Amino acid sequence: MIRASIVGGSGYTGGELLRLLLDHPEVEVAQVTSRSHLGEYVYQTHPNLRKRTQLQFCDPQTLQPCDVLFLALPHGQAQGEIERYVKLAERLIDLSADFRLRSAEAYRQWYGHPHAAPQWLERFVYGLPELHREELRTARYVSGVGCNATAANLALAPLVRAGLIEVEQPVIVEIKVGSSEGGAEGNPGSHHPERSHVVRTFSAFGHRHTAEVIQETGLTHVKLTMTSVELVRGVLATAHVQVKSGVSNKDLWRAYRAFANENPFIRLVKEQRGIYRVPEPKILVGSNYADIGFELDEDSGQVVSICAIDNLMKGAAGSAVQCMNLMFGLEETLGLEFPGLHPI
Amino acid sequence: MIRASIVGGSGYTGGELLRLLLDHPEVEVAQVTSRSHLGEYVYQTHPNLRKRTQLQFCDPQTLQPCDVLFLALPHGQAQGEIERYVKLAERLIDLSADFRLRSAEAYRQWYGHPHAAPQWLERFVYGLPELHREELRTARYVSGVGCNATAANLALAPLVRAGLIEVEQPVIVEIKVGSSEGGAEGNPGSHHPERSHVVRTFSAFGHRHTAEVIQETGLTHVKLTMTSVELVRGVLATAHVQVKSGVSNKDLWRAYRAFANENPFIRLVKEQRGIYRVPEPKILVGSNYADIGFELDEDSGQVVSICAIDNLMKGAAGSAVQCMNLMFGLEETLGLEFPGLHPI
Amino acid sequence: MIRASIVGGSGYTGGELLRLLLDHPEVEVAQVTSRSHLGEYVYQTHPNLRKRTQLQFCDPQTLQPCDVLFLALPHGQAQGEIERYVKLAERLIDLSADFRLRSAEAYRQWYGHPHAAPQWLERFVYGLPELHREELRTARYVSGVGCNATAANLALAPLVRAGLIEVEQPVIVEIKVGSSEGGAEGNPGSHHPERSHVVRTFSAFGHRHTAEVIQETGLTHVKLTMTSVELVRGVLATAHVQVKSGVSNKDLWRAYRAFANENPFIRLVKEQRGIYRVPEPKILVGSNYADIGFELDEDSGQVVSICAIDNLMKGAAGSAVQCMNLMFGLEETLGLEFPGLHPI
Amino acid sequence: MIRASIVGGSGYTGGELLRLLLDHPEVEVAQVTSRSHLGEYVYQTHPNLRKRTQLQFCDPQTLQPCDVLFLALPHGQAQGEIERYVKLAERLIDLSADFRLRSAEAYRQWYGHPHAAPQWLERFVYGLPELHREELRTARYVSGVGCNATAANLALAPLVRAGLIEVEQPVIVEIKVGSSEGGAEGNPGSHHPERSHVVRTFSAFGHRHTAEVIQETGLTHVKLTMTSVELVRGVLATAHVQVKSGVSNKDLWRAYRAFANENPFIRLVKEQRGIYRVPEPKILVGSNYADIGFELDEDSGQVVSICAIDNLMKGAAGSAVQCMNLMFGLEETLGLEFPGLHPI
Repeated sequence: MIRASIVGGSGYTGGELLRLLLDHPEVEVAQVTSRSHLGEYVYQTHPNLRKRTQLQFCDPQTLQPCDVLFLALPHGQAQGEIERYVKLAERLIDLSADFRLRSAEAYRQWYGHPHAAPQWLERFVYGLPELHREELRTARYVSGVGCNATAANLALAPLVRAGLIEVEQPVIVEIKVGSSEGGAEGNPGSHHPERSHVVRTFSAFGHRHTAEVIQETGLTHVKLTMTSVELVRGVLATAHVQVKSGVSNKDLWRAYRAFANENPFIRLVKEQRGIYRVPEPKILVGSNYADIGFELDEDSGQVVSICAIDNLMKGAAGSAVQCMNLMFGLEETLGLEFPGLHPI
Repeated sequence: MIRASIVGGSGYTGGELLRLLLDHPEVEVAQVTSRSHLGEYVYQTHPNLRKRTQLQFCDPQTLQPCDVLFLALPHGQAQGEIERYVKLAERLIDLSADFRLRSAEAYRQWYGHPHAAPQWLERFVYGLPELHREELRTARYVSGVGCNATAANLALAPLVRAGLIEVEQPVIVEIKVGSSEGGAEGNPGSHHPERSHVVRTFSAFGHRHTAEVIQETGLTHVKLTMTSVELVRGVLATAHVQVKSGVSNKDLWRAYRAFANENPFIRLVKEQRGIYRVPEPKILVGSNYADIGFELDEDSGQVVSICAIDNLMKGAAGSAVQCMNLMFGLEETLGLEFPGLHPI
Repeated sequence: MIRASIVGGSGYTGGELLRLLLDHPEVEVAQVTSRSHLGEYVYQTHPNLRKRTQLQFCDPQTLQPCDVLFLALPHGQAQGEIERYVKLAERLIDLSADFRLRSAEAYRQWYGHPHAAPQWLERFVYGLPELHREELRTARYVSGVGCNATAANLALAPLVRAGLIEVEQPVIVEIKVGSSEGGAEGNPGSHHPERSHVVRTFSAFGHRHTAEVIQETGLTHVKLTMTSVELVRGVLATAHVQVKSGVSNKDLWRAYRAFANENPFIRLVKEQRGIYRVPEPKILVGSNYADIGFELDEDSGQVVSICAIDNLMKGAAGSAVQCMNLMFGLEETLGLEFPGLHPI
Repeated sequence: MIRASIVGGSGYTGGELLRLLLDHPEVEVAQVTSRSHLGEYVYQTHPNLRKRTQLQFCDPQTLQPCDVLFLALPHGQAQGEIERYVKLAERLIDLSADFRLRSAEAYRQWYGHPHAAPQWLERFVYGLPELHREELRTARYVSGVGCNATAANLALAPLVRAGLIEVEQPVIVEIKVGSSEGGAEGNPGSHHPERSHVVRTFSAFGHRHTAEVIQETGLTHVKLTMTSVELVRGVLATAHVQVKSGVSNKDLWRAYRAFANENPFIRLVKEQRGIYRVPEPKILVGSNYADIGFELDEDSGQVVSICAIDNLMKGAAGSAVQCMNLMFGLEETLGLEFPGLHPI
């Protein structure tokens, strides 16, 4: 059994991670820390875990050595304490934004302040198995992924890998997100009467996850526009891309099919009939799947490429567990079998 | 023109009141106070009022005399300052819970502390025109109504007035409410991911609005059970009542029809066909109507009596404006004509 | 491996059953029938199952013998064909309403027509393990459960078993339900603009599931009132009960704790702090848990007893799989481990 | 008083129109037709109108002459009967798609069949007062507007009028829509459990409203991508535009301010603080406002331009009444004063 501990277990990502690890056949959860909920049962914060565990939140100062340490702290905290954490476990997965970028300069540009441990940036592998599977098998330090970045990266990956994009043209990625993305702490805009049924374009340009998309796709003219919608879990990325002259529907089918075939959690959704013809986050709640699809406008060579995920699963805790499986030589899908629900 | 001012205009009730008064043909809004939003345009807080008014929130200390003063303060504040406010206007309507009960003893029992101005309690009229129309025409001081109490009182009123209830039997009123009832200030439970799609029975017994139902119906064995549902605006009260032996469907029709006929904002909804057969808060958003309906179980003599309202309208600001109309000898429905929307 | 087949697999209950059986470690799904979707892949109807199975819907006439046959047909169909189905499998679980009542007379009274196979009624065991665990271990024919009946029965079970109810007084059960309860076929009232955000008391008296509550609790003065709310999955039953004179909070704690301790899927939720203090269907989506709780009004001896479930799981497919586990001598919880999600 | 009749009053657009006309101070509603609801009270279909009118749906064959006739029929019907309708009233407003395009060739291209009355196309004025105010003052025949086209056209109008767009670059308009857009007739995809909480990109390219955007903006490289979200009423258009080299934030402010100042129902929303900083359909429910806003990325010269409307108001019935006001020389805003609600 792999002994795993979670630092920062009272947030949404930490809670989802805990749910996955508690049910994982090869993992034993050793400790879960939370300063604000110290001593409380984890099921008081994560009520779905009632009758599943008697774990209580403990003080991060009491952390014991373990096989793998998951950091699920608010962004900016892990980088200051990374030296301490790596001493506790041979393998570490940090789900915050602290170690996602390989370049200290890019970090400074997008996050607005210098990185506190820049020498650690290159030791981390970006934790998206669809793009870094082989590196992850031998990685000791793995970063999490931005949920919006993941939806964008997976919408673009088939096109990027097949070299179909006209890279000098702008790539516009419209991203629709649910409320859990904002984390477990409320703010005036997350108060239910104000947040309910919004279609709120809260970031037209400059969202920080853009940096991860630039890094992982190599595209330089890519913009993310973010809109909150009525949804708790879920991200839909709709990427508008100019493809190279002569690219046909057949080329696109080939590229998307190949990507879906090579990755256990990628599904190509492109149906002519029925209700569910395109990727939708609705049916992915609790699931680690990323559903992808596309449409080509033959006249203009524009492609709409779509990816739907659950932001807390494929966009956070699910990908982290998938990375852990790879790091420990386990079946990649272990503990991630829940397929999602219909209807929901 | 009636010059009206609002104390506490940044909350939901204050904002709704402001919307109604700005469009009221006989009212000029003089001042709107808010300590926390001092100097800001009211449309920054109530974005529906953009381009409708250039009013800015002012300091309550700068209040000038006016014809009618509306108090929309958090519960407990008005009672301590009532002497000051009544000097500013000949007529005053307090929308908080402070002056709803006629008995200082009942206030202490339900609110857990002594009333700060008990001598004022008897000078106020309970601001529900359907129960106190004639008194309101000559009233100087009028209290607002509890939104849940209003749904319960109007569900029970036809039965009470016609003397049909077996008063020794318990009356159970199940009330389903939306999130705006909790006010504009957020709390951990109102954070969208936690509040979304709840069916949360947050008060099984002892809700404070019970006191208003006891006072206004004269029933002593009445209990309110409160459940939050996914809704921003709206209250549905479903009252379970034992009627006297021999009470027939015809008796009930007569009682409910009479009540609807005598009151411009009461509608009887009891259809055999179509989608909207019973009272529903969904179609009352923004409207001052209270829709009522009933069902009799002839074998047991049990009646289910239903009332739906918009908590911010008939349950708060709408009833207050209706009271103002009566106090000033205006048409009761003036400025309250918006019928609600379909679909919504 | 147990070979299982599903008759009527394109509905919501059939789809949920299929999801559970596909992931069940001891089951192999042999056939799934659907006349209306004949030949289509099951994932075209149940999009969550894409990449999980290549099963196609087959004609019910092609059904082969198997170890257990699940019937998930519209109500009224199984009773006419039961003789045919029992020849195909030694064990049969019918999820419709056809074999839930033990009395042909009760069936005629509540369903308005005579039962087509009354001699079969007594051969079936009512498929709620919390009430019939021992019988189920040896049963060959098991009925499903009504979802609303299940929420009501489990809300009342601790009180009934402990003999705490004043049975001559009316028991009023207010039930709030989601839209999936109506099944996969749309109707004018389920059109999204009309169904969205309803609080619609569609049945004040006489809901058919009442018959199952009377049968299983032995209470005769029990009424169900049904209200649709904005929710896809979930039922909350709030039962209003008069308890016997002298019944204390301690007695209630004892009764509810015992019931939760004896049943792996029953959880007692009664917290003083936090957001989730009472049972709520929100966190049960996809889970087989039934969360129960209570509140006592000591003055009046009234109790509010609450039960929350997912109507498609504990209220349908989940309980059916739990029954199957018992019938085959498996661990009762096998294949039903998904705990639900937070947030959702 | 203007005598107005509505043909096709049982749909959502017809119902909204009826609500507006019933409350319009200068209008008397003469007749409302519906074949499918013949003889029923209009409030049985539009329950918000209960106690507001005793009108019953009548047969279209019984239509009497009136001052203005509104056609709210399903697309494709008006063109075949236009000769009959124009004989009944001197002024006619058709809310369907039949007379929106000025070119019979464009109609054939986008609607896939030849127009049945092409000679009538040039007699109609496109019913968006913000673009055709002066023509509307003297128009006898006015078309309605596509709701999505309206959101796109008003998002682009300030840029088009000021000549700021680099017209050779693609213009991508991402449009998010609510469920009422699909009309009052249900379909499998509008069944609540399937439609609830979708983020469903149902049209990547080729939506018919594109034709109206091309016609009204003069842009040729414009694409609309349509995504359904959880919402009953509301459209948000987010347009991605390349502006000409050298266009500054100040230029944009000037263009948007001018457009808002010249049009009573256009509001510029661009706040640095508060919850409502950008246009949102949420607060426009029932209102005729179109809220617009923008953001410039100075490095790339890309602009995100946003417009929010209520599809049944500014996107349909509201604009139609605004046109009627202009056609009859009335105040443009008459009967359209409802500002929308907060919270909602």
